[in-house]
Amino acid sequence: MPGVSKEEVIAFLARAFPGVEEYLVIEEMGDRSSRVRSKFTKRNLRPGGTISGPTLMTLADTAMWVALLGEIGTNEVTVTTHLSIDFLRRPAPCDVIAETKLLKVGRRLATGVVTMYSDGDPEPVATATVSYTVPHPPGS
Amino acid sequence: MPGVSKEEVIAFLARAFPGVEEYLVIEEMGDRSSRVRSKFTKRNLRPGGTISGPTLMTLADTAMWVALLGEIGTNEVTVTTHLSIDFLRRPAPCDVIAETKLLKVGRRLATGVVTMYSDGDPEPVATATVSYTVPHPPGS
Amino acid sequence: MPGVSKEEVIAFLARAFPGVEEYLVIEEMGDRSSRVRSKFTKRNLRPGGTISGPTLMTLADTAMWVALLGEIGTNEVTVTTHLSIDFLRRPAPCDVIAETKLLKVGRRLATGVVTMYSDGDPEPVATATVSYTVPHPPGS
Amino acid sequence: MPGVSKEEVIAFLARAFPGVEEYLVIEEMGDRSSRVRSKFTKRNLRPGGTISGPTLMTLADTAMWVALLGEIGTNEVTVTTHLSIDFLRRPAPCDVIAETKLLKVGRRLATGVVTMYSDGDPEPVATATVSYTVPHPPGS
Repeated sequence: MPGVSKEEVIAFLARAFPGVEEYLVIEEMGDRSSRVRSKFTKRNLRPGGTISGPTLMTLADTAMWVALLGEIGTNEVTVTTHLSIDFLRRPAPCDVIAETKLLKVGRRLATGVVTMYSDGDPEPVATATVSYTVPHPPGS
Repeated sequence: MPGVSKEEVIAFLARAFPGVEEYLVIEEMGDRSSRVRSKFTKRNLRPGGTISGPTLMTLADTAMWVALLGEIGTNEVTVTTHLSIDFLRRPAPCDVIAETKLLKVGRRLATGVVTMYSDGDPEPVATATVSYTVPHPPGS
Repeated sequence: MPGVSKEEVIAFLARAFPGVEEYLVIEEMGDRSSRVRSKFTKRNLRPGGTISGPTLMTLADTAMWVALLGEIGTNEVTVTTHLSIDFLRRPAPCDVIAETKLLKVGRRLATGVVTMYSDGDPEPVATATVSYTVPHPPGS
Repeated sequence: MPGVSKEEVIAFLARAFPGVEEYLVIEEMGDRSSRVRSKFTKRNLRPGGTISGPTLMTLADTAMWVALLGEIGTNEVTVTTHLSIDFLRRPAPCDVIAETKLLKVGRRLATGVVTMYSDGDPEPVATATVSYTVPHPPGS
């Protein structure tokens, strides 16, 4: 079960969600991890001028997906089974960076931790754990 | 700490998120609960033709917020602290209904359970627990 | 995939965890649900005189397991994959009741919601969602 | 708001939960983190010979508490508001180590991530996020 290159995942994501490349940038990928940037747009603000919760949840879900595709490839249909997110600080109106680390890619489920930061600030704005189904067992 | 009417929350939501009324409908509200409909749009589809996870997460977050505003009013700034969601079934390409029940509105936190259904199907597509800060203690 | 009777699950639980019957009572089971009582013991108290968090987490995990065994039988080895719990009120020093409702028993995972109450009090002390692996697909 | 020494927390824990020192060892503490060891005992096994889920949940809850006490001191009563745990691998019948990192100690809530390992194995057996109330705001 080979993984794929960053370029393949970028192309795959663009086909799956046309236009996504305008606001999501895969900066790094591989070695059971990913770094994904959600670019700032006024549409992602909520009252009070912070980045909205749904923006962070969408980022966490996508960043985990990207890290997983790097392991299992883009031929597989994998779906989120669980996402748990803690909102820690109000995110400033700027880009948000999601650092994902896969903790397990098993026969049924893959689980990772996603930590999100406002661009340039070392204190995390949110942390999430996300699980996806793994459609075909590695090695099967 | 008076609650507010459905009409007030609808107007408040429309001011906070212009255009939201095109895809979110508050069907019922009050008595520590809410019923919110996410109207179908092709933008909410993911590959495979099901409603995307971010659509359900946004709905859960908003439906909990609506139920909470019915208790604490719209003068308060309240933010999500935690959201945990389990995706149970692939949601059909149609409206999604979120039924929220507040389990606690305390001095610090309010917590509710949101159960989501594809319109017309009694089996839930997702369940979430959502917590918001409560800015000013009841009675203070 | 036949379910099992309450008596079978009680016997199974007693073999798996000898002595458990002294503090856990399966009051109801079946129809994708369970009602399990955690009997009061001073060992379950934490400073301040309330029932400890680990007691509630253990109860949630076990109550979900009981409800699931009622569906898939006791021949299967099933393990918890995820548990998310919100603590809502300080539980009084008395029995705690866990009401479980299975939301899905799928080919890979089973997920349920467990709501916990201090005996005699209608306001919940905690709510949890719990997922278990389903070892063999229904119908396979 | 001064923190406390490891020795103080060990003494505090032993007063709060007499006998706890027989199975829980605070190995490190401070700098917004903790390392806590749950010593192996046959009582913590579940059928199949692995460490039980409740053992891991109790460890996660306690390890987060220890890290938090190191920040806010032992004069405060703090309670768990939320715990979310993913079980990743079957833990071997040996000691379990919990590494906790506080992500936020705010005016209302403190949140940390706890990663658990079977002693000597670098792959995590479980990961949890845990939130506690913060009774008195820092600086107030």
